[in-house]
Amino acid sequence: MSSVAVKEDNALKVSRANCAKNTVVDVKGCSIGGEEIVVIAGPCAIENEEVLKETAFKVRALGATILRGGAFKPRTSPYSFQGLGVKGLEILAKVGESLNMPIITEVMDTEEVSLVADYADVLQIGARNMHNFSLLKKLGQLNKPVVLKRGLAATIEEWLYAAEYILAGGNSQVILCERGIRTAETWTRNTLDLAAVALVKDVSHLPILVDPSHATGVRSLVTPMAKAAISAGADGLMVEVHPEPEKAWSDGEQSLTPNDFNHLINEIKPVVKASGRRLSL
Amino acid sequence: MSSVAVKEDNALKVSRANCAKNTVVDVKGCSIGGEEIVVIAGPCAIENEEVLKETAFKVRALGATILRGGAFKPRTSPYSFQGLGVKGLEILAKVGESLNMPIITEVMDTEEVSLVADYADVLQIGARNMHNFSLLKKLGQLNKPVVLKRGLAATIEEWLYAAEYILAGGNSQVILCERGIRTAETWTRNTLDLAAVALVKDVSHLPILVDPSHATGVRSLVTPMAKAAISAGADGLMVEVHPEPEKAWSDGEQSLTPNDFNHLINEIKPVVKASGRRLSL
Amino acid sequence: MSSVAVKEDNALKVSRANCAKNTVVDVKGCSIGGEEIVVIAGPCAIENEEVLKETAFKVRALGATILRGGAFKPRTSPYSFQGLGVKGLEILAKVGESLNMPIITEVMDTEEVSLVADYADVLQIGARNMHNFSLLKKLGQLNKPVVLKRGLAATIEEWLYAAEYILAGGNSQVILCERGIRTAETWTRNTLDLAAVALVKDVSHLPILVDPSHATGVRSLVTPMAKAAISAGADGLMVEVHPEPEKAWSDGEQSLTPNDFNHLINEIKPVVKASGRRLSL
Amino acid sequence: MSSVAVKEDNALKVSRANCAKNTVVDVKGCSIGGEEIVVIAGPCAIENEEVLKETAFKVRALGATILRGGAFKPRTSPYSFQGLGVKGLEILAKVGESLNMPIITEVMDTEEVSLVADYADVLQIGARNMHNFSLLKKLGQLNKPVVLKRGLAATIEEWLYAAEYILAGGNSQVILCERGIRTAETWTRNTLDLAAVALVKDVSHLPILVDPSHATGVRSLVTPMAKAAISAGADGLMVEVHPEPEKAWSDGEQSLTPNDFNHLINEIKPVVKASGRRLSL
Repeated sequence: MSSVAVKEDNALKVSRANCAKNTVVDVKGCSIGGEEIVVIAGPCAIENEEVLKETAFKVRALGATILRGGAFKPRTSPYSFQGLGVKGLEILAKVGESLNMPIITEVMDTEEVSLVADYADVLQIGARNMHNFSLLKKLGQLNKPVVLKRGLAATIEEWLYAAEYILAGGNSQVILCERGIRTAETWTRNTLDLAAVALVKDVSHLPILVDPSHATGVRSLVTPMAKAAISAGADGLMVEVHPEPEKAWSDGEQSLTPNDFNHLINEIKPVVKASGRRLSL
Repeated sequence: MSSVAVKEDNALKVSRANCAKNTVVDVKGCSIGGEEIVVIAGPCAIENEEVLKETAFKVRALGATILRGGAFKPRTSPYSFQGLGVKGLEILAKVGESLNMPIITEVMDTEEVSLVADYADVLQIGARNMHNFSLLKKLGQLNKPVVLKRGLAATIEEWLYAAEYILAGGNSQVILCERGIRTAETWTRNTLDLAAVALVKDVSHLPILVDPSHATGVRSLVTPMAKAAISAGADGLMVEVHPEPEKAWSDGEQSLTPNDFNHLINEIKPVVKASGRRLSL
Repeated sequence: MSSVAVKEDNALKVSRANCAKNTVVDVKGCSIGGEEIVVIAGPCAIENEEVLKETAFKVRALGATILRGGAFKPRTSPYSFQGLGVKGLEILAKVGESLNMPIITEVMDTEEVSLVADYADVLQIGARNMHNFSLLKKLGQLNKPVVLKRGLAATIEEWLYAAEYILAGGNSQVILCERGIRTAETWTRNTLDLAAVALVKDVSHLPILVDPSHATGVRSLVTPMAKAAISAGADGLMVEVHPEPEKAWSDGEQSLTPNDFNHLINEIKPVVKASGRRLSL
Repeated sequence: MSSVAVKEDNALKVSRANCAKNTVVDVKGCSIGGEEIVVIAGPCAIENEEVLKETAFKVRALGATILRGGAFKPRTSPYSFQGLGVKGLEILAKVGESLNMPIITEVMDTEEVSLVADYADVLQIGARNMHNFSLLKKLGQLNKPVVLKRGLAATIEEWLYAAEYILAGGNSQVILCERGIRTAETWTRNTLDLAAVALVKDVSHLPILVDPSHATGVRSLVTPMAKAAISAGADGLMVEVHPEPEKAWSDGEQSLTPNDFNHLINEIKPVVKASGRRLSL
């Protein structure tokens, strides 16, 4: 189907045809998809309570309102660090509560959905699981917000249909997240597709975030792509921050330091304003 | 890592460094990865017992030794036919038994692994789940052969690491299956990567099949690609056959009729011989 | 080579290592690569003097300072309109002069370089010719600005080396132009790679434009991508405008009407300001 | 257009609709596109007379009937060896004549067409120039066979339209050559698309070769891909051979030694026979 056909197909719950008004997802008082631009920040993986606390405290002070951190990590090699699991969830929940920040973390398997949902305020489906239809169906039965990342090589149409799996199950709190697609370009980890952001806002009523960290894999590109994302119409950002990226257990080369994150916030402020929106605080 | 580095890395169970001799997987007396070329055939989805029986009987008579059929179907849209589920598994097992054909079917979720394993002789992980690490780990604990399809846009390295997840869990009966990768070409559904077949045979000791049906999505290309696959060194084929493709509930345009399948078998015979191998019968 | 290696390689004329200060290319008093953001606009192909005049007058009044228009058109089919050739160059030059707008047009062949250079203020190398090394060498001998579009599937590294061909020949007036790369996404004509813009500004001292028209192929995406491009650090835009896009001889579905262009200018103004720059007027 | 539409469009000279019988191109008595499989071999670049002579003598003795060698080389960097130019053409012609082998070499520019045509029996358009429409038009006016390589990221449809440019000009002696397309896979230089070979043979009447050297960039993959290409229906092969690949001035890692080439010929012989064809001798 063409984008126009999807936009006009009122048999699809994701379609704009069903909702002239944008969907706004409420995350414990923090709304995504409305006038405010939300910034989600935190480390790639939860390593221990101290590092997470330090990171969370700093990003919260600088303007992030939701805390991210991975407890179950999808890794190419079975011998790479797979995340702290339940222990990670406990740490994340504790730190989030202490700072009054809602938390988001990835769920990789249908068998872990209820466990992760016990801790997290938002559940994330990673790019590698965008086509995991069993997982999508399970999250459709949940009454919690879901962030659905675009698959490594998924078309926008397939991505919207993946969201449809969740909506069809009865859960309408779906937030899309563009994180780049795989191409032959080698200087960036993926190719960030910002036209997808503008297209999704046109074709669908769902909110959409951009993850400039995974999209580029390069620290110095995170801030310019964050600004570009907001200008393209994104409803928020998801950014990796680590107090000492060179010591991070994963994704260090794309993580910002708290200082870098401070710079990012300062840089996006005028762009947010130019877009007629305001930063969620 | 480069292909040479993976080939020489004896810390990786998939690596050729660990096994000069090719792994041969036994499927109820039918061996995959040895001298014989195996042909797996059957419909995309199991629709009912009659159609499956007719298809199975014909492909068995013509040279297929393993029967394929989908009971749980990964579909882009939640509103497309999702497969008959358990009922489909029962039909598949019954038909396979009646013809003395081992059966292979896809498993999409960790929660269904033991159910599918109760019926199937070989469990298949589809392209959309190649990066579903929870599922890979679960199949690593199984004592049954697994066919692992290459992901939509997965590199060969990522694919071998996905196999490593299964081997690392203790299950060494892994069979790879090349089914094309996604590119900008539009006249075929995917781009069949036969160099991947030759590379895998060099870098790893695992057997590898080719699925020319999904790789091309075009009926007339299935037979030439089957021949090319064997010349490239594939250990077998996985082919969609339906008695009336135009009435198939899914993938009709790439399914062969029994007549087409007869032609395919006749065409590959001299190629199999030219490769110094023989058809499994 | 990595982007860092290219950035630090002072044997490469395009490298940042050779020029801490950004190159600013002067086009008849209109500078590209400095503080000002330049907007280049006009029809895809020059059709006749009336249409071009009308378009040029309107885009000039609204804020475009350089006029674009194709006289030699690279078309997939030999039976499609190939451009008006010399007649087109004459019209373009006449209209440009009457409005005091510098003009840019594509050159497709070494044999036409001196002809095109007689008329044009800036010569454009299209995406399909980015790897036409003979043409690059010829333009290296010219003393005129050159806009070098990124190839359909060119890496950023290859693109910078293509620019190096021109610089190595002695012509340092090179302006890069990102126009999207080819991917498996079908809802857009190409995938606009804005990380390439930020990377190029970091690795090289050359100015860089963005062509949101060809990058997306979709009218409604041109303005959001124009805004995103400026936020990503682009030095200017190249936009297709046609008084009646539905009657355009080529690329109608991605051309803006003068009204759309007015909207684009109004939308980018606050973004330009937020980037600490100003529109060239 | 779909492949079926192109196949049935008799307004296109490349279309099967215009020619039920396959086009057979005669190259000084060596026919391409008929029953015989032709093998074209030689070094990537012509380095000097001795090396070329030695290579040519050996490949001729082993079964190659046409000699390849580059005099004008398309190189990513302007500082890489650009080929010997006219001197290279002279050497190639001399060696070809001494062994009674027709010669093929690349032409990169309209201005060099008549020069190259003075020496070469077949002119080659490289992947980077497939979209160089001026060059295509010029070769359409020639009365010599042309090998047209597929562009780096060209669709099959665009490739056939590029051939149409040559045919439309009056030159019907066009031979296509599949050499892989660019994808995100990193273990091979390109992804060889053998379905394109079968599709082209179906949709068009033009002969088609495969270049397994450039398609893979890996010496050990050249022979298996050569076999697969013939099984897919290719009319011939184009292979890089160098007496000492580790000393080659370009593409050494994908060049075969004469010994490797001997092995390739021995390996393809049974496949050629299995395809009901015979090697050109």
